[in-house]
Amino acid sequence: MMKKFQVITLFPEMLAGVFGSSMMWKAQKDSIVELSVIDLREFGIGPRKQVDDTPYGGGDGMLLMIEPLWRAVEAAKANDPTAKVLLMTPRGQRWHQSLAREYSESEHGYIFICGRYEGYDERILELVDDELSVGDYVLTGGELPAMTIVDSIVRLIPGVLGGAQSAEIESFSDGKTLEYPQYTRPDSFNGHNVPDVLMSGNHSEIAKWRLENSGKA
Amino acid sequence: MMKKFQVITLFPEMLAGVFGSSMMWKAQKDSIVELSVIDLREFGIGPRKQVDDTPYGGGDGMLLMIEPLWRAVEAAKANDPTAKVLLMTPRGQRWHQSLAREYSESEHGYIFICGRYEGYDERILELVDDELSVGDYVLTGGELPAMTIVDSIVRLIPGVLGGAQSAEIESFSDGKTLEYPQYTRPDSFNGHNVPDVLMSGNHSEIAKWRLENSGKA
Repeated sequence: MMKKFQVITLFPEMLAGVFGSSMMWKAQKDSIVELSVIDLREFGIGPRKQVDDTPYGGGDGMLLMIEPLWRAVEAAKANDPTAKVLLMTPRGQRWHQSLAREYSESEHGYIFICGRYEGYDERILELVDDELSVGDYVLTGGELPAMTIVDSIVRLIPGVLGGAQSAEIESFSDGKTLEYPQYTRPDSFNGHNVPDVLMSGNHSEIAKWRLENSGKA
Repeated sequence: MMKKFQVITLFPEMLAGVFGSSMMWKAQKDSIVELSVIDLREFGIGPRKQVDDTPYGGGDGMLLMIEPLWRAVEAAKANDPTAKVLLMTPRGQRWHQSLAREYSESEHGYIFICGRYEGYDERILELVDDELSVGDYVLTGGELPAMTIVDSIVRLIPGVLGGAQSAEIESFSDGKTLEYPQYTRPDSFNGHNVPDVLMSGNHSEIAKWRLENSGKA
């Protein structure tokens, strides 16, 4: 069964390029995942398709209203009734490779709610299974975090990447540094040379050099 | 003078939607920043525009070659001679709101090199001022981290957002939680009600409630 990722956003065009390129494009083409974008505006209220309003009690900025979000999540659940609902927010649990692994192995699909920075009606938390943050920095909206989390999960689903790359991921999951320095042709460029040992053909010396140089910047 | 952000990538189409939407679109329209994408493929070698090759010493996967990257960075520097070159890599310094602040206040423009997961020729570090990571998770390429870092910097540049939002950012920079719960219309939805105090019109009670409820999920 294809794992489904549905992203609810006011800016569908932000997602199209990323979901249509490279690994994410290939994972869809190979029918391993289904990535779709739900335009929150379609669930707006009234002829002007209103999606935000001013806060009760005063304050600056506009908040995403509960009703359009509620209906958008219901529409997404109609596509995937057991999907988990994820809210992108700076106060959420910090995303980590171990969570990417866990989410990739889960049987659930995921519905992402992308807030805009101004905020949202707190009652959307009634709909939310997990609140997630990608790091200690403020972004304009939840779209980049949602795409980041989707990317990190999709690449761990069996069949998406080859075996050798999967192994490297495990070493990162263990908290070790990723890689030894690597070089490709030409062996000399602008006075910068590839270390001789890597061109020696001596496999045990190469392995030793790589181990000694792992994790160095 | 407009601050320039140039992103070197093999997947220019991944950037177009994000750079063309919402706040980033507006900041360009208002001539506050200049966002551009440099297609690494254009600097590829030979008739097939080769950009990657197998690693010296053996190993899986293909590495980005030094020559096309070097030429792409030179082209970007021709547009912005004092720009800093940033490499997106999981082993880099962890991105943080305090760095976003620092980079937004700097007089430099930025050139982003987006690796692909398979890796790159280590000699590109000769070109790099800062190695940056957005978090402890593995992504397919540097494009999402680059867009994330651009978003977090651009929104702090004076004139891009309004004053009220800037103030909220400061509270996050101090390591405090972002916000109190907010609500907008309707006051009752599917049995979920807005707290009475927020509709009381009593400003001191509202301020007290908000302080008490700051940082709660």
